[in-house]
Amino acid sequence: MTLELYYWPTIQGRGEFVRLALEAAGEPYVDVARGPGGQAKMLKLMGDTSLPRPPFAPPFLVDGEVMVAQTTDILLYLGPRLELTPADEPGRLFTNQLALTIADLVKEAHDTHHPVGGSLYYADQRPEAARRAKEFREERIGKFFGYFERVMAANPVGDTHLVGRALSYADLGLFQVVEGLRYAFPKAMRAQERNWPRVIALHDQIAGLPNIAAYLASDRRIAFNTDGIFRHYAELDE
Amino acid sequence: MTLELYYWPTIQGRGEFVRLALEAAGEPYVDVARGPGGQAKMLKLMGDTSLPRPPFAPPFLVDGEVMVAQTTDILLYLGPRLELTPADEPGRLFTNQLALTIADLVKEAHDTHHPVGGSLYYADQRPEAARRAKEFREERIGKFFGYFERVMAANPVGDTHLVGRALSYADLGLFQVVEGLRYAFPKAMRAQERNWPRVIALHDQIAGLPNIAAYLASDRRIAFNTDGIFRHYAELDE
Repeated sequence: MTLELYYWPTIQGRGEFVRLALEAAGEPYVDVARGPGGQAKMLKLMGDTSLPRPPFAPPFLVDGEVMVAQTTDILLYLGPRLELTPADEPGRLFTNQLALTIADLVKEAHDTHHPVGGSLYYADQRPEAARRAKEFREERIGKFFGYFERVMAANPVGDTHLVGRALSYADLGLFQVVEGLRYAFPKAMRAQERNWPRVIALHDQIAGLPNIAAYLASDRRIAFNTDGIFRHYAELDE
Repeated sequence: MTLELYYWPTIQGRGEFVRLALEAAGEPYVDVARGPGGQAKMLKLMGDTSLPRPPFAPPFLVDGEVMVAQTTDILLYLGPRLELTPADEPGRLFTNQLALTIADLVKEAHDTHHPVGGSLYYADQRPEAARRAKEFREERIGKFFGYFERVMAANPVGDTHLVGRALSYADLGLFQVVEGLRYAFPKAMRAQERNWPRVIALHDQIAGLPNIAAYLASDRRIAFNTDGIFRHYAELDE
C-alpha cells in the first residue's frame, strides 16, 4: 500500500523532513493534502473520533493500518524501512537524538518571527521578533551548527555524516535547516558558514544526490515562503 | 552498572520525566549533578571533545558505554528496559508520539514566562508574557488535555491509560504536566479540570502508586520553583 503523508499543503514546514526522507529513498508516497479535496480529507481524519491512536497535529503518516504522528516519530518509523538509520539500537537512538535537536532548532527559528504567540500575526509582534531574532542569529545558530560540526568531527567512522558511514534522516534534517536558514537569514548564514565546513560539505553532498536534486527541481518541492516555519523578513537579518 | 542521570540540580525541568520513569520502576540511579561537585562534572562531560556521541544539552543518561540525550530519546531507551512501554512496535511508537506531544506542551508552558527569549529575565518580558499566558490558558491547555482525554477514551483496551493496559512513561509524563500546570496556573486548572475526567483519574492513580508516592514525599523530588519550566506568577494566572 502506498504511504500517505498528511501535512499542510502550502508550506514545507515540519512535513518537509518526512518528504526529504521519502524522496531520498525513492519511496512512492501520496502527499494527500496537496491533492484535490486533500486538506478537507486531512482535517476530517484528524477529527475522526473512531481512530484508536489519533494525531495531535500534522504531519502524520498512514501506512495501511498504522498511523504515526510527530515528525521525529514518523522518521523513527520510516528510518529502518527506508534504510536511513543505522541498524544497531545505539545508532538508531543517536539518529533520533539528532533529529530531536534539529527539531529544537526548527522551533527556535520559528519563534524568531512569532515570539509572543501563534495566534498573532508577525506584524503584531515586530519589536519582540527583532529582539528574539538578534539573539537567535548571534547566539543560537552558531551554538547549534557548532554542535553538529562537533558531532561530525567526532564520528568514529568518518566525518562525512552525522552518524555512521551512510546517509541518515538526521543528515537530511541538517540539510533542510541549512536550506531554511539560508532563506530566512542569508546575511547571518553567509557570515557564519565558514565555521562549520563539515556541515556545509554534507549539505552540498546531499544537494547533489540524484533523488534529492530531482526532488528540489520538481514542483513537489514547495518554495520557501512567509507562511512557513523559516521566513525571510529582511529586518530580522540585520 | 548504576544508571547516571545528568540534569540541572535545582529544578525538576525536563529531567523530571526521566526521574519519574526511574522512580516508578524502582530502578536505582545516581542524580549526578545533585551530588558534591556534580554540576561541574556534568559541564566537564558535556564539553569533552573525545565523546563519540555528545549531548547538545541536559538531560542525558549514561548507562555504561551508552550515552543518550534528549528527554524523549532517553525515555525511548529506558521504556523497554523498565517495562514502561508496550512490547510491540506500534505501541512503542505511539508512546513516543505521546511523549513528544507532552514535550510540546511543556515547551509552550515554558514560553508563557519567556516568550521573547531565554537570555532575558521574566521581569524584562512581562507584557509579552501576559499576552502569551492568556492564549495558553484559554486555548492551549484545553486543546492539549482534550487531546489526551480523547486518546484515553479511544484506547481499545480500556480508558485507564494512554496506551495499552499498563503504566507507560507517557502516563507518567501526563501526571507531571498536570502537577506542573496545577502549580503554575492553579486557577486555570481548577476551572478546566472537570473537562478531562480520565486524565485526572490517571493522575490520581499515579500519585497513589507506592513508588511514586514515596518519591514525591522524599527529598529526591525537587519542589516546583520559579527557576524551572513550570513557574507560578500570579499575574499570569488571571
